[in-house]
Amino acid sequence: MDAISVIRAKRDRAELTDAQIDWVIDAYTRGEVADEQMSALAMAILLNGMNLREISRWTDAMIRSGVRMDFSSLPLPTSDKHSTGGVGDKITLPLAPLVAACGAAVPQLSGRGLGHTGGTLDKLESIPGWRALLSNDEMMQVLRDAGAVICAAGDGLAPADKKLYALRDVTGTVEAIPLIASSIMSKKIAEGTGALVLDVKVGSGAFMKNLADAQELARTMVGLGKNAGVNTVALLTDMGTPLGLTAGNALEVRESVEVLAGGGPADVVELTIALAREMLAAAGVTGKDPETALRDGSAMDHWRRMIAAQGGDPDAALPVAREQQVLTAPASGVLTGLDAYAVGVAAWRLGAGRARKEDPVQAGAGVEIHAKPGAHVTAGQPLLTLHTDTPERFDYALEALAAPDAITIADGADFKPTPLILDRVS
Amino acid sequence: MDAISVIRAKRDRAELTDAQIDWVIDAYTRGEVADEQMSALAMAILLNGMNLREISRWTDAMIRSGVRMDFSSLPLPTSDKHSTGGVGDKITLPLAPLVAACGAAVPQLSGRGLGHTGGTLDKLESIPGWRALLSNDEMMQVLRDAGAVICAAGDGLAPADKKLYALRDVTGTVEAIPLIASSIMSKKIAEGTGALVLDVKVGSGAFMKNLADAQELARTMVGLGKNAGVNTVALLTDMGTPLGLTAGNALEVRESVEVLAGGGPADVVELTIALAREMLAAAGVTGKDPETALRDGSAMDHWRRMIAAQGGDPDAALPVAREQQVLTAPASGVLTGLDAYAVGVAAWRLGAGRARKEDPVQAGAGVEIHAKPGAHVTAGQPLLTLHTDTPERFDYALEALAAPDAITIADGADFKPTPLILDRVS
Repeated sequence: MDAISVIRAKRDRAELTDAQIDWVIDAYTRGEVADEQMSALAMAILLNGMNLREISRWTDAMIRSGVRMDFSSLPLPTSDKHSTGGVGDKITLPLAPLVAACGAAVPQLSGRGLGHTGGTLDKLESIPGWRALLSNDEMMQVLRDAGAVICAAGDGLAPADKKLYALRDVTGTVEAIPLIASSIMSKKIAEGTGALVLDVKVGSGAFMKNLADAQELARTMVGLGKNAGVNTVALLTDMGTPLGLTAGNALEVRESVEVLAGGGPADVVELTIALAREMLAAAGVTGKDPETALRDGSAMDHWRRMIAAQGGDPDAALPVAREQQVLTAPASGVLTGLDAYAVGVAAWRLGAGRARKEDPVQAGAGVEIHAKPGAHVTAGQPLLTLHTDTPERFDYALEALAAPDAITIADGADFKPTPLILDRVS
Repeated sequence: MDAISVIRAKRDRAELTDAQIDWVIDAYTRGEVADEQMSALAMAILLNGMNLREISRWTDAMIRSGVRMDFSSLPLPTSDKHSTGGVGDKITLPLAPLVAACGAAVPQLSGRGLGHTGGTLDKLESIPGWRALLSNDEMMQVLRDAGAVICAAGDGLAPADKKLYALRDVTGTVEAIPLIASSIMSKKIAEGTGALVLDVKVGSGAFMKNLADAQELARTMVGLGKNAGVNTVALLTDMGTPLGLTAGNALEVRESVEVLAGGGPADVVELTIALAREMLAAAGVTGKDPETALRDGSAMDHWRRMIAAQGGDPDAALPVAREQQVLTAPASGVLTGLDAYAVGVAAWRLGAGRARKEDPVQAGAGVEIHAKPGAHVTAGQPLLTLHTDTPERFDYALEALAAPDAITIADGADFKPTPLILDRVS
């Protein structure tokens, strides 16, 4: 077996054999297949595709490149959620303790933000004392104590994916559905969850800009999950506008706690409950209803236990940015659009996100939203409040919000709200 | 400008701009664009193509990565030939002195063999004392003295091509017509010839296996030559069976000298004369006819001067391999096929070629051909004589000749010879 014959096969639109896939992933992990060979193969896969059998085998080979976790000793069934990433997407924070309160264990290995989309670990790290890095034993203990754990993935999980992801990032080969799907699913399957709900985001603030691409990605990932024995379903949800009323780290924690307290923005509550129902159903857990668990304080109770078990103080005051600036409505009318990408880039530029993996983030930075699409606004009323510790960034953030479609106000006669949940794939 | 945006543009089927092409070639030569980025771009080019404007600019950028030679101080017009490579293709050897004898100067920068196709420099190095490496001044002196020079290209000529060619070799991106065409033409244009005749080989022993691909490559290269002010024409010629009666190094020199002495195999003579006429016409030289120059000894005279000027002894005995083995006809009938690829691989395995760039070649190794397609043969009569210094290689060479279509003998009722010259592109 050699790299050139595998590259040529995919280049010439052949179906890769199991042996070719197993060999190329293993040899790449070991360094026998060079980066320049893997990037040529990744481009051939991006342009010529892979079928579900090939993607399944590819995913499986990446899982076998590292360790696989096992939660079979837990007394509860496990269920997890993965979002493909969006702006203001804090859903994991209220969702994990909510599902735990309803009777399924949630073992979530999560990531950090890169670019304009936020990262769950960055958000939680704004809670004083909270630690993302846990040993396997600590993770199991948090899961037993709180029913849910959100922590960083160890280095041993799918190392082939880690290496390939970094390569794709610099070679223009990120946007390949077979590679996106296998990257996500290799980590989630190796994580050892029994059930999985995918939140595939669609729209300007998401990775997938149109519904057809998102549907293909969702179908591929659901197929991969089922092939690996993980009960998997996907919701396709709108990411044309930010979720909720905040995009940032501490700002989103605050909003998540509001949801756990039975309040919070309607869209965040709607999506949290919908995903919780899917996670419970996929894990075969019936009994407590998520709406009840939000109302009766049991979800909040699991949140407090989860945060405390990872060193965080659930009662501590959250960081606040040193400077604020308000952006007002330039005209009166109906706010017909508030673009997720523009808000995401603004939050990122204010310091909520990072440009490179090793950059720090500002806990207090971000964007607060005072009006959502469909709202009637009056010229001069506050639309957004920008937060940052570094006020020299305001202009750069405002530039993103000055893009043609960032904020649109019209007479609103023909305004139709986009439904939050666009499709379901199972 | 950055590598990812250039890769993405070609990946998404956009036309690359002049600025993108200039930047990426320059940055790759300097090492700012990494190998894994260039290989992803090469795969995108292979699968999505480039138009003639893009290929012209790409070629020009590769030329500008190094030095460009200049023969304008010569009293004669210059004309060169390039073959895309075949089996038994010794045509350059008699052709260069023949064209010189007819009044055009031939400044040929040539290469070594790799794989089953032979290299002109390897062949000439079987002449005792002959040197391939010349300084620019020495090259000019040989050209003035003998009218023709065949030597190795210096490192300064199109260094971007050298780096890219080595990368393509290990990343499955060799077979891209835009990259093949620009690789060949960047070197030939930088070499500074005024006219160029391309011999694009078609068939099993060639790089291009079918006429349509060869025509596309020929049209692309002729277009590139014209754009760069080099009067360029291409002949498409058959490489389904070896040229002449020998494939090897010293074996092919011997056959070339026979042609220069007015004899030699009919196909070698036909192609040599056809290419000589094209080279002279492209350079605007009229007067002496190539057939006359072969008959009257003037071509041979230029050969002797050219070899001697590069340290070779034109009267020295050529090396002979230590061992021979004869392959006989397995049946009586008409030899309907003698496959160029099979013969090329056999010669290569006997020691005439190299597997890696740094390997040495055997001067005496190769295959002598006793019957060509169309000949009537009798079971048991000699078909081929295999030559090598390392007789343990005979079996491995015979294996190549035992392939199903390597040697075919039939009743021959429906045998039709393939014409040597298949097409002309100008």
